Amino acid sequence: MSKLRNEGPIGVFDSGLGGFTVLRALAEHLPREDLVYFGDNARVPYGIRSEQTVINYARACAGILRSLHIKALVVACNTVSAVALDVLRAELFFPVLGVIEPGTRAGLAQCPNGRLGVLATGATVRSGAYPRAALSCNPDASIFVRAAPLLVPLVEEDVLSGELARLCVRKYLEPLVLDDIDALLLGCTHYPLLTPLMASELVALSGKNLPIIDSAEAVTAELLQLMASQHLATERAYPGKLRIILTDRPDNLDLASRWLGRDPAELNVTTVDL
Amino acid sequence: MSKLRNEGPIGVFDSGLGGFTVLRALAEHLPREDLVYFGDNARVPYGIRSEQTVINYARACAGILRSLHIKALVVACNTVSAVALDVLRAELFFPVLGVIEPGTRAGLAQCPNGRLGVLATGATVRSGAYPRAALSCNPDASIFVRAAPLLVPLVEEDVLSGELARLCVRKYLEPLVLDDIDALLLGCTHYPLLTPLMASELVALSGKNLPIIDSAEAVTAELLQLMASQHLATERAYPGKLRIILTDRPDNLDLASRWLGRDPAELNVTTVDL
Repeated sequence: MSKLRNEGPIGVFDSGLGGFTVLRALAEHLPREDLVYFGDNARVPYGIRSEQTVINYARACAGILRSLHIKALVVACNTVSAVALDVLRAELFFPVLGVIEPGTRAGLAQCPNGRLGVLATGATVRSGAYPRAALSCNPDASIFVRAAPLLVPLVEEDVLSGELARLCVRKYLEPLVLDDIDALLLGCTHYPLLTPLMASELVALSGKNLPIIDSAEAVTAELLQLMASQHLATERAYPGKLRIILTDRPDNLDLASRWLGRDPAELNVTTVDL
Repeated sequence: MSKLRNEGPIGVFDSGLGGFTVLRALAEHLPREDLVYFGDNARVPYGIRSEQTVINYARACAGILRSLHIKALVVACNTVSAVALDVLRAELFFPVLGVIEPGTRAGLAQCPNGRLGVLATGATVRSGAYPRAALSCNPDASIFVRAAPLLVPLVEEDVLSGELARLCVRKYLEPLVLDDIDALLLGCTHYPLLTPLMASELVALSGKNLPIIDSAEAVTAELLQLMASQHLATERAYPGKLRIILTDRPDNLDLASRWLGRDPAELNVTTVDL
């Protein structure tokens, strides 16, 4: 039974395709694990729904992943991580990790003065989840959270460099640098695509090499620890398979497959109705 | 009865607060009419919903406006104008005007070579409503429709001038100028806030003063004609009242009241649950 459990896939759940940045980190660090991604792209974005609706959607999607015998669930969506994680943990009998707590812990670990900057969507900012997570980690932390509504459309337009992208990024980084942050946490799955640009703008604005923390890397590190301590790693020696389940045919799969670092033709994508 | 009907308000319906640009045009050109605005901001944006859901929402919202004895309904929302106008017209016993047909007619009227450029949201572009409207106006028209996903967040960030705004606007105008358009139609209620910037960029890109058509002005002109022909104008000599009904408390009412050109403190806003 324990061995069978080991050989189940790791589930990744997101409201859309942005979670491909998380899937990429998992595939890189856990190359022998089977991964199954569930993207509820028919109902994206979750950030504009009521809390109860997000919980209902999260339950339904997690239920499909459970039926595929996953051994752990990574919730890549910030909105679900903010409002539905406790419900999912209470109902599911395998480990459930969100992106907010691991990202905040990893971010604060890089803040000698306890001053963490966070960029996120308006919905995530309004949820108050990052300040809550930071204060539960370190009651003395100062957290500066800014909504960055231009960055998701920028990434979805594939504008990742050049003057327009630089000015968008600078608009949001400038006030955080004025707040004298020690490190920057990316609180949205789309933003890691802009990391190189953000790094150079942070140097230009602050004169310092401020660390940039990608929640995808942080949640992957926590999952690795957890799998080691709970003996959940696969015993197979060959590369894991990747399966993608969406609730609608995507119109930007070519772009998203670049976020994942794979050829779109080699992706195993199926569509289900919810 | 006919006289009572004259004295009813004009209803304006939108999925959010973007329709304030339409409300502003109506208030300017029809200063003696009572206006009642219904913004379903709890469920914005409609563009990501299925057609049937948009129809259901539109029916419910129009029903509330009907109960307020409106004499005409202006649908400011492009998504509702694209998918639900026929349903609303079949069910309501007063005139219902959308923004797509009046905008397209006004736009094509300014196209000597029949080449009309349209900027709209991704959802409106996918609906195909502008090419349909253009072809039903003029089967020989060439219509160039581009999605401009950065422009709504730009307006909601109140970035209406400066280099960042200029580069965003240029990104979308450049291909339309290469398509040799005669005129530009703004197919989203947010975009008229960017008209001054678009006008100067169109001159810079094309060397010509290309006309920019605001659907708000176009639908107001058609409503004026219709009210004259159906004898629907009020007989009162004093200024009309403005009432705003929303389905959620707005977090950007200060900004939106500037789109309307009014002091937020003087706005009569109520919130209803749907």
